[in-house]
Amino acid sequence: MSLLAIGTVAFDAIESPFGKTDKIIGGACTFISLAASYFTKPINIVAVVGDDFPQEYIQLLQNQGVDTEGLQVKAGEKSFFWSGKYHNDMNTRDTLVTELNVLADFDPIIPESYQNCEYLMLGNLTPQVQMTVLDRLKKRPKLVVLDTMNFWMNVAMDDLKKVIQRIDVLSINDEEARQLSGEYSLRKAAKIIMAMGPSTLIIKKGEHGALLFQGEEIFFAPALPLEEVFDPTGAGDTFAGGFIGYLAATNDTSFENMKRAIIYGSALASFCVEKFGTERLLGLSKEEVDARVQEFVKLSGFTV
Amino acid sequence: MSLLAIGTVAFDAIESPFGKTDKIIGGACTFISLAASYFTKPINIVAVVGDDFPQEYIQLLQNQGVDTEGLQVKAGEKSFFWSGKYHNDMNTRDTLVTELNVLADFDPIIPESYQNCEYLMLGNLTPQVQMTVLDRLKKRPKLVVLDTMNFWMNVAMDDLKKVIQRIDVLSINDEEARQLSGEYSLRKAAKIIMAMGPSTLIIKKGEHGALLFQGEEIFFAPALPLEEVFDPTGAGDTFAGGFIGYLAATNDTSFENMKRAIIYGSALASFCVEKFGTERLLGLSKEEVDARVQEFVKLSGFTV
Repeated sequence: MSLLAIGTVAFDAIESPFGKTDKIIGGACTFISLAASYFTKPINIVAVVGDDFPQEYIQLLQNQGVDTEGLQVKAGEKSFFWSGKYHNDMNTRDTLVTELNVLADFDPIIPESYQNCEYLMLGNLTPQVQMTVLDRLKKRPKLVVLDTMNFWMNVAMDDLKKVIQRIDVLSINDEEARQLSGEYSLRKAAKIIMAMGPSTLIIKKGEHGALLFQGEEIFFAPALPLEEVFDPTGAGDTFAGGFIGYLAATNDTSFENMKRAIIYGSALASFCVEKFGTERLLGLSKEEVDARVQEFVKLSGFTV
Repeated sequence: MSLLAIGTVAFDAIESPFGKTDKIIGGACTFISLAASYFTKPINIVAVVGDDFPQEYIQLLQNQGVDTEGLQVKAGEKSFFWSGKYHNDMNTRDTLVTELNVLADFDPIIPESYQNCEYLMLGNLTPQVQMTVLDRLKKRPKLVVLDTMNFWMNVAMDDLKKVIQRIDVLSINDEEARQLSGEYSLRKAAKIIMAMGPSTLIIKKGEHGALLFQGEEIFFAPALPLEEVFDPTGAGDTFAGGFIGYLAATNDTSFENMKRAIIYGSALASFCVEKFGTERLLGLSKEEVDARVQEFVKLSGFTV
């Protein structure tokens, strides 16, 4: 079924104990789209870049099945740029540069051909833009998934609370779940957050896996213990993209299918961190993804 | 099959955001024994207390199927005493008091009737005492599990490395695995540690579950997300006791059965933290344990 993803398409520059990149393609919408493209095509996107964004990067997205009709290219403006440096443990990072550029006044225009989307991924962006996208869709999608971060809780909590009233699935990390709910226990936090609107909550715990909550149901997906985490940039977005891509491809939003979707999202995220930026996601075969999913089956399977 | 457990039998005094206890029964061997007793009886123990240790606590152990022939009671001496205070997040604690008392010169004497033990749990104690126990067993047990902590890595690393050469299963937490191996990646750490002796490694991650490594095999057991963690004291020992108790009861040391044992250990640990000290472990029914194990099945089960 048709999938629409909103978020940043941008430049990243990354430093880690393993090396350093120049400006490379990054952004939430980029990782979401590349991950989702393993399951369904086309991926429709609504995003904005400046005219400094190389045609080859747009081509790269198109080659993976991304429809770029909704990608605005702003003449005379510069693309969003983020630069960060990971510490030795790869779990903490410092932001070195954030240049909003075209993002500062992003008006998400939805092409007419995207109007009937069934699956909507509201990637990490200002809650006001996420809300505008919901307002501009004439028909409510079958499933709306929203990803956000602590930054928006700090600067736009009211807007964020308004938009999450209108979504189905919220995807945040454990610290964000604690911040949003005011509860340390994730089980209590989940109840409070689901009472704010979303019927389903995903709590991402990075190297510790992810929890999926819906009503009284809880599912835990492990993360694959990796020999090396090379670059965690985009892992959360890749996870979300794999999740909604799998749901859109199977067109089944049951809790049982969401469990599978979480595992597929985790599998794609486990590839993402193996190289810098989007590198490992490009050219990944269906066989590699399926084999990785089987590693998750083996990792967590037991009988009593 | 016969199970022998070594470790502390002691007094604990605990402060947490939920309240405060007087001196109550604690110690690694106590939690190990109570947990193991859900699967097999008797539990033979080698431990030491002073004559300040109440007869009612010894009776409590006996009532749960613990054979106390190997429990030395030192006249005129005081029992080991630990006191700690948990912070609001329940994941960090300050040690307020550590009085070694009888533990300072503990000589682990093994009763003749314990000599043929098949399953040996070397609970957290000085590595020298753990080694002495191995030396004094005339026949090597079928399975030797050792639990230790960062403290011994700081003050007795050489002794610790000697004793872990001779065991089958090492049980430590994630930070300890990193300290022992010098590797941040747990997957790399596991390889290094298994090359030091143990063919199997358990890495405990508290609220994030536990990893089981053996050769190229990896199994991940989730922790149950709890509404409230009341008191984490003894959870790791309870986990280890449930693990070895289940293995001894089933007399099956295959990797498949170790997976089940980890789940049973995790289930018992999830009860342990629901009340202060040993309170929740006492009088737990087999039905309650089985129902909790089913929660783990539900929590981590999926099909692809």
